[in-house]
Amino acid sequence: MTDLGPGGEFDRLRSVFSRLAFRVTGVGDDAALVTVDDVGLAISCDLAVENQHFRLGWLMPREIGWRAGAAALSDLAAVAAEPLGILTAVGVPEGREGTFLEELMEGVADAGTSVGAVVWGGDLVRAAQVTVDVTVVGRAPRPVRRSGAQAGDGLWVTGRLGAPRAAVEAWELGHAPSGGLRERFAHPTPRVREAAWLRDQGATAMIDVSDGVIGDAGHVAAASGVRVRIDAEHVPVHEAVGGEASGEAGKARSGDVSLLLALGGGEEYELLVTLPDGFGAAEAHMFADQFGLPLTRIGEIEDGAGVTVMRNGSPFPVTGGYSHF
Amino acid sequence: MTDLGPGGEFDRLRSVFSRLAFRVTGVGDDAALVTVDDVGLAISCDLAVENQHFRLGWLMPREIGWRAGAAALSDLAAVAAEPLGILTAVGVPEGREGTFLEELMEGVADAGTSVGAVVWGGDLVRAAQVTVDVTVVGRAPRPVRRSGAQAGDGLWVTGRLGAPRAAVEAWELGHAPSGGLRERFAHPTPRVREAAWLRDQGATAMIDVSDGVIGDAGHVAAASGVRVRIDAEHVPVHEAVGGEASGEAGKARSGDVSLLLALGGGEEYELLVTLPDGFGAAEAHMFADQFGLPLTRIGEIEDGAGVTVMRNGSPFPVTGGYSHF
Repeated sequence: MTDLGPGGEFDRLRSVFSRLAFRVTGVGDDAALVTVDDVGLAISCDLAVENQHFRLGWLMPREIGWRAGAAALSDLAAVAAEPLGILTAVGVPEGREGTFLEELMEGVADAGTSVGAVVWGGDLVRAAQVTVDVTVVGRAPRPVRRSGAQAGDGLWVTGRLGAPRAAVEAWELGHAPSGGLRERFAHPTPRVREAAWLRDQGATAMIDVSDGVIGDAGHVAAASGVRVRIDAEHVPVHEAVGGEASGEAGKARSGDVSLLLALGGGEEYELLVTLPDGFGAAEAHMFADQFGLPLTRIGEIEDGAGVTVMRNGSPFPVTGGYSHF
Repeated sequence: MTDLGPGGEFDRLRSVFSRLAFRVTGVGDDAALVTVDDVGLAISCDLAVENQHFRLGWLMPREIGWRAGAAALSDLAAVAAEPLGILTAVGVPEGREGTFLEELMEGVADAGTSVGAVVWGGDLVRAAQVTVDVTVVGRAPRPVRRSGAQAGDGLWVTGRLGAPRAAVEAWELGHAPSGGLRERFAHPTPRVREAAWLRDQGATAMIDVSDGVIGDAGHVAAASGVRVRIDAEHVPVHEAVGGEASGEAGKARSGDVSLLLALGGGEEYELLVTLPDGFGAAEAHMFADQFGLPLTRIGEIEDGAGVTVMRNGSPFPVTGGYSHF
């Protein structure tokens, strides 16, 4: 779905949407929020293309489908919508119309089933690259937007970060990522139930971590008209990220490099959420108990604009930001 | 959207959907028909890929967008839905993120505006081929399905057929199609208002002509459990089809070849509709007056199964059917 924030791709989409002006509505959150005959709906699409978002050597067909489905469903989670249906448009090269295609589409359907959505339809064409566009529709009577964060709110994130990007780096260096990293890339979980719980706890703004924590914090800051302060020492790094060999001749990653991956990695499909200051450790424990997933306070909303990253009270240099990873 | 009828591609989608079994709903019409909180919705997606559905040398970027949008919106017309919103997922090769992309997306939005739909969102990625997936959502309180045709109904078609396929044949032979043929390929009109009128006149089954009249008649026959008889001498052939030189060394097309193009050409985005026998010439005149478009009775629904093509009362050989064009 459309992201409106930093980055060349977003600038381009924003420019196109801005030229379309009066004919565009609903844009600005992870999913478009629209109302049809008083029913609030969230709808989003996510296009994944071979060699751009994945390589055939990295994933099984079922994983390609799951990942594409989960990415789209995560957009529904980000606005606390309840997934209902999926449309899957697939392009496959000659020779991949059999088992490959069936397994890919079963992967999409599996991702839907995991959060209560069924397949409503699709399209199938020939293409030079494996191409999967997943459109998801959900019920959104009480959506959480990006625009509601207020000074004083806490900034929280679900799960542990950095693994998907570390997996890609491993593949690109020609070695297989560890099981934990691979699983996070191949089998992300759309945080649909977690999002509903967070909404019911009073979440003021929410977004899924698809562009990296810093990038997505920037989207929240822009939409809410606030500054987001990230306290880097609290950012939860996935345990397998540090253990994985880095690009420097197999040397284990330093803590700083791991942290940068966690801050900028992207495609995590965890939730970045702002909650009133009254939401604290006790509530985070309830979340962890219920979902088997950490919920970590990593910063605070302040008056101002943009994103500042601190570590132990001093500015933490993130040169160039997430887009340079 | 999913077509369930003859043809290898449909067999494959049907096989995949059938394996997904309990997790699939709404499939069987041009658009998925679903109900959310008592609101009837129609939703469909249509994926167009460079060199498969169009070539960059044939169409301007705005036409690529219009055509992709119109194809998806035609699926809403086919069930007599009222278009509301569009999501556009676009993949473009490096160097096409500027004007090319903007014009393409404006073309999609123009197609939407022409029938009252606005852009709700989209996605933008890098891809080796220009890739456009358009998802459309409409209100469908009284959908017309493929499954309602009954013996004794008349079979009708809007517009004049054969031009899009003739345009493609011209391009493939290396010469520019005539203006009339090119326009029908580059700028198809989704018959949304026409469909609502036909529904209000008691249409019993409807489909858009995307696989060719014979192919789409086969979908109606299968879904309705009837035989569709096509009287080929009544099939309206687009006036520019016969004038266009054929593949045989520039010889003008014979009437038979033109008729075969009209019967099997596909991607027409006209409506094939069954209406009670009481709907006759007077009503067709009203339609033509209102929409500036012919509505022609081309056959009848009979007891039985499949499609029979007659000409002047004798079987008309359509060897191999539409799929061999």
